[in-house]
Amino acid sequence: MAGSTFGSMFRITTWGESHGSGIGVVIDGCPAGLPLEEETIQAFLDRRRPGQTKYATPRNEADTVKILSGVFEGKTTGTPISLAVLNTNQISMDYSEISGFYRPGHSDYTYDSKYGFRDYRGGGRSSGRETIGRVAAGAIASAILKELGISLCAYTKSIGNINIDYTKCNRDNIPLSPFFMPDLEASVAAEALMQEKMEEQNSIGGVIECIISGVPAGIGEPVFDKLDANLGKAILSIGAIKAIEFGSGFSAAQKTGAQNNDPFIYTEDGKISKLTNNAGGILGGISDGSEIVFRAAVKPTASIAQTQRTINKAGENISINIKGRHDPVIVPRAVVVVESMAAVTLVDMLFVSITSRMDSIVKFFR
Amino acid sequence: MAGSTFGSMFRITTWGESHGSGIGVVIDGCPAGLPLEEETIQAFLDRRRPGQTKYATPRNEADTVKILSGVFEGKTTGTPISLAVLNTNQISMDYSEISGFYRPGHSDYTYDSKYGFRDYRGGGRSSGRETIGRVAAGAIASAILKELGISLCAYTKSIGNINIDYTKCNRDNIPLSPFFMPDLEASVAAEALMQEKMEEQNSIGGVIECIISGVPAGIGEPVFDKLDANLGKAILSIGAIKAIEFGSGFSAAQKTGAQNNDPFIYTEDGKISKLTNNAGGILGGISDGSEIVFRAAVKPTASIAQTQRTINKAGENISINIKGRHDPVIVPRAVVVVESMAAVTLVDMLFVSITSRMDSIVKFFR
Amino acid sequence: MAGSTFGSMFRITTWGESHGSGIGVVIDGCPAGLPLEEETIQAFLDRRRPGQTKYATPRNEADTVKILSGVFEGKTTGTPISLAVLNTNQISMDYSEISGFYRPGHSDYTYDSKYGFRDYRGGGRSSGRETIGRVAAGAIASAILKELGISLCAYTKSIGNINIDYTKCNRDNIPLSPFFMPDLEASVAAEALMQEKMEEQNSIGGVIECIISGVPAGIGEPVFDKLDANLGKAILSIGAIKAIEFGSGFSAAQKTGAQNNDPFIYTEDGKISKLTNNAGGILGGISDGSEIVFRAAVKPTASIAQTQRTINKAGENISINIKGRHDPVIVPRAVVVVESMAAVTLVDMLFVSITSRMDSIVKFFR
Amino acid sequence: MAGSTFGSMFRITTWGESHGSGIGVVIDGCPAGLPLEEETIQAFLDRRRPGQTKYATPRNEADTVKILSGVFEGKTTGTPISLAVLNTNQISMDYSEISGFYRPGHSDYTYDSKYGFRDYRGGGRSSGRETIGRVAAGAIASAILKELGISLCAYTKSIGNINIDYTKCNRDNIPLSPFFMPDLEASVAAEALMQEKMEEQNSIGGVIECIISGVPAGIGEPVFDKLDANLGKAILSIGAIKAIEFGSGFSAAQKTGAQNNDPFIYTEDGKISKLTNNAGGILGGISDGSEIVFRAAVKPTASIAQTQRTINKAGENISINIKGRHDPVIVPRAVVVVESMAAVTLVDMLFVSITSRMDSIVKFFR
Repeated sequence: MAGSTFGSMFRITTWGESHGSGIGVVIDGCPAGLPLEEETIQAFLDRRRPGQTKYATPRNEADTVKILSGVFEGKTTGTPISLAVLNTNQISMDYSEISGFYRPGHSDYTYDSKYGFRDYRGGGRSSGRETIGRVAAGAIASAILKELGISLCAYTKSIGNINIDYTKCNRDNIPLSPFFMPDLEASVAAEALMQEKMEEQNSIGGVIECIISGVPAGIGEPVFDKLDANLGKAILSIGAIKAIEFGSGFSAAQKTGAQNNDPFIYTEDGKISKLTNNAGGILGGISDGSEIVFRAAVKPTASIAQTQRTINKAGENISINIKGRHDPVIVPRAVVVVESMAAVTLVDMLFVSITSRMDSIVKFFR
Repeated sequence: MAGSTFGSMFRITTWGESHGSGIGVVIDGCPAGLPLEEETIQAFLDRRRPGQTKYATPRNEADTVKILSGVFEGKTTGTPISLAVLNTNQISMDYSEISGFYRPGHSDYTYDSKYGFRDYRGGGRSSGRETIGRVAAGAIASAILKELGISLCAYTKSIGNINIDYTKCNRDNIPLSPFFMPDLEASVAAEALMQEKMEEQNSIGGVIECIISGVPAGIGEPVFDKLDANLGKAILSIGAIKAIEFGSGFSAAQKTGAQNNDPFIYTEDGKISKLTNNAGGILGGISDGSEIVFRAAVKPTASIAQTQRTINKAGENISINIKGRHDPVIVPRAVVVVESMAAVTLVDMLFVSITSRMDSIVKFFR
Repeated sequence: MAGSTFGSMFRITTWGESHGSGIGVVIDGCPAGLPLEEETIQAFLDRRRPGQTKYATPRNEADTVKILSGVFEGKTTGTPISLAVLNTNQISMDYSEISGFYRPGHSDYTYDSKYGFRDYRGGGRSSGRETIGRVAAGAIASAILKELGISLCAYTKSIGNINIDYTKCNRDNIPLSPFFMPDLEASVAAEALMQEKMEEQNSIGGVIECIISGVPAGIGEPVFDKLDANLGKAILSIGAIKAIEFGSGFSAAQKTGAQNNDPFIYTEDGKISKLTNNAGGILGGISDGSEIVFRAAVKPTASIAQTQRTINKAGENISINIKGRHDPVIVPRAVVVVESMAAVTLVDMLFVSITSRMDSIVKFFR
Repeated sequence: MAGSTFGSMFRITTWGESHGSGIGVVIDGCPAGLPLEEETIQAFLDRRRPGQTKYATPRNEADTVKILSGVFEGKTTGTPISLAVLNTNQISMDYSEISGFYRPGHSDYTYDSKYGFRDYRGGGRSSGRETIGRVAAGAIASAILKELGISLCAYTKSIGNINIDYTKCNRDNIPLSPFFMPDLEASVAAEALMQEKMEEQNSIGGVIECIISGVPAGIGEPVFDKLDANLGKAILSIGAIKAIEFGSGFSAAQKTGAQNNDPFIYTEDGKISKLTNNAGGILGGISDGSEIVFRAAVKPTASIAQTQRTINKAGENISINIKGRHDPVIVPRAVVVVESMAAVTLVDMLFVSITSRMDSIVKFFR
């Protein structure tokens, strides 16, 4: 089926394979009149290329985005925005070997099972490069959210057993850390861990946390399009993400009601607030005006250089060594992808929430 | 917006509030020719009423389901199946007090924020009774899956800090445990914990695990309608679920690639298998033929009898005691809901996967 | 697949067969705070039962609608509205004969082809009674439109070769005519035609026209969800409708650009208007502020008493006489169905249009 | 909202404006394993450029299509197929005048009403060039249909008052006629009419007919996604189409049941057929195995050189002359667009019909 479209009122459709002619996205449902330049999108795309460090693939991915439609005189027109990153120099590596076996932890086997064959060059559609379309769309979604006073902040919470210490965190640190960690001490510790994994020809996973501020209460559509349900789908659709939790998440399973319930309170200026935020900003699938908080688990990079057991198409159990240089961790690259998918989801949910009340609609049209 | 419909090819639409005229679901896209009786659906609904025990609301919920359409001479006709549980004796309790304040951990405040007012009787649409429609649909989805050789098994993995011990688990134990635990020793320990929480006028959360067997490789639609993404949305849309993880899940964040990758292997009879299942049966968003495994965290019951802080609509910070008898744990009731939503999602994903290959389509039509 | 749901933001899902337990609809996406009573819906349903006359089936269809959910204290809550007309006395006619052959002009054969068998009692899902759900939803859509200053008026434009004369039309006449014609002279002529057709054991078709007033300019979503495209789908989905045209419609095919173009003009009070309305109020798929005008062709009743040739399931060419009393014309019954589907479509399109401009969205949320 | 996506299982998303960087389409849900070359798509695109004649815009639209994704080693991979026609030489005409007024019959005013401003260069998104994406997708849909033994044939039925004579028609004539008419005598007469309209600085409309052969009985999803309803939406979404009718269409409104009902009959080789085809191959919204027949009305070209009345944005009633060379008729260009949209709809409806019966599904998966 057609699984490359996400969203209802704000809808993105991505296309492209790792080693094809390009990768892109069509954003449909972007309101007219939003100022938009290629630079805004490029800045987001650049965040998924932390190639400055030795922990990420250093190959020169120019990844220059072009706006092909939907923008006129510097503003969106309300018609579909087509964004493309065309591959300038297609890599002509020999993939004959990889085409014959199934890499553990990759989707080689499942793509073959589903489609009968696969574009095996660089992972094809299941490559991490697929996220270019998501991030390009996320840049536009974030621009919309900014106009509405909503901001997102995603960062690395842990890599392996290295966790950030919230007492040492500062958002300004995030871009300074090669792992996008807000705690620079943890970041230094993660560098040491990385060195160790690279020497072992191994890789490691991590956790990304995302905080969304400024979302008004009332966003989310019970009972199936709850805000957490749709955010959950968006994040779980990212390659390598194996889990998601909101607010107290899995720890809620061990808590009592008295511990987990967040008491409501009027602040001194008469605003409604909560004393705690175990709910992660979502109650009954609807935003409650607090910060929305979720965490996602990223599995270790599946491509590792050490010898692994697997099978080939010829019916044999074999051992393989996957050639090439591999990122020992994909968590840092995924940070902006998580933030982007959250932004896209949030714009969509904000838009669909507009018709929640008859009085607002009457006011809008009369 | 319209958030009460789930699915694409196999689509369910639920309706109803806790204390309204009834609760129901319309299942659209059920193939013609499936034998279907009310008893099959009733059996599923009865699983969400573990009223036999003292750990669940003992009020007499008859919850008798009626098939209103879509079945003729004992078989589905391919047209929409309307199922309804009509409320026979509507409870005429006085809800005037509850209507004026916002219960912590409930969606009273978010519904008011979104819609301007709410049906406050028994939680209205956000009541646990809303899941009747999901479970009724789940019964039909499970009947379809059975015909395809696919089975689901959900159970309670933990309540508070009481975890099942896999070495002591037996699926036959599940219906014997008041908590639907496959390990009866853990179940006895959970009973003691329950007693403690009831005495404290408190509640506790837990974890539900679900295992799906018999799913062929190739199900799931990259890049947004991945099998785990859609299952994630389905499960996270259930009230009180705050987290979900697939396979090694959050623990993958601390693993290395060498640990987390599942080596493929040919079994002695030439079938493709994996030595481990950290992937939880899903690679790149597509089923790999192994068991699909996921876990969901259920928060503690928000309704507790002990005094809690909150606010009222009059602008005051107040203390409340929520009257009535409350389940100290909702995990057991949620087990069949999790299984049902997984079944509904799986049928939908199986159906949409049918057009993955041109040769199959040609064979189908010619 | 799931074909019983229509709409995106305002979404209706219908269910039920002619001789099953009932017929109903779930309306999802109705904004909260709309005053709604069963009487409003019943009034619409009564319009599709012109049983007062001898030209429509006189069987006593009580068709009493019940609101099962989504309304609290006389107002919609924003949650799904479930409406049902339960069959009180199920007709126990003998349908054994009809089950064995395929009536010309009916969907007996196509249902059997598609689903393998069919509910042959009274036409099952393909019965005209299926429209009860559409009309019940139309009543709610019309109530929303009324709040927005938008009104719809559908009527019979022609029956056979009897056409209304626009110079003699008055909307007040519509309910006075057994055919819902605004020209009572034409209505009288149609009565004579009806008498003739009944004597011939024959039937006749007709044309319904619908005029929608008060729609602001700017509604409709290029390029696929154009206002005329979505209205077209809505109307063509009604049984027995074989054609639709907007504005000058088919006659535009014979016109020149100079004839068909509608000159824009500023009215004396500075409003934008058009000198003519060949566009039928829609330009480029978007409303232009003029009246929206369309016409739909209704085929003659397929059930006629005279002998007809057809086939049976036993492989024989046979002759049949369809028993029972048949409406010689279904046009009058279809008038409110056309109006209802137009109303449902329009509400949906109005709702999705709300996010067309960034400045409106910013204003809405800040 | 997002109105640039069409279809459910086979889904197309178009983008691009007349004078932007390019125009394209993403086709999602195309099964894997379909042989596909750029030439196949180019051949369809070339059919919408009858630039050989003097009745169509002679500007050199190279319109060279590129496949950017979804095809590997000459076959579709099951992932999204991105097709683009990039504008090589962007026209730098001065549009300052046109930007200030609203052309009659065009969507200048409605786009401004909806979006607040518009890309006025060459009609922007509402240009006829938007159909490039539709036709490119139609080429792929047609390739799929060919594999299933289904073929489509669209042609011009009339231009102004010049109608084809069915006794003189031959499908082989269609590509020989500058108007794609199967009757070459009518085509010659249309040429004379064209000459006349060009001299008058005027334009003329026409009717396109489409016949689809080889569709098995059972395709279409009651009650809203009926085959005729979805085809109707598809065709009415094409610019300049103002009406559609199936089978006897509007003439059914004047027929009796005895005339309009199509008697079923067993052919000599035992197949089910109909003696007539007033139904146009669709009964109850489901294909009946006969040819599917529909006609669509195309309005006269809105751009005419003669002086017209209209308004400008400055609040004045003015007279305008639209400069440039205009097609006196757009019917011939629209023929392949109608055929393409019908093909796209049909593939989608075929795919969704696959799950109509439980026995087929069991057979597919087991």
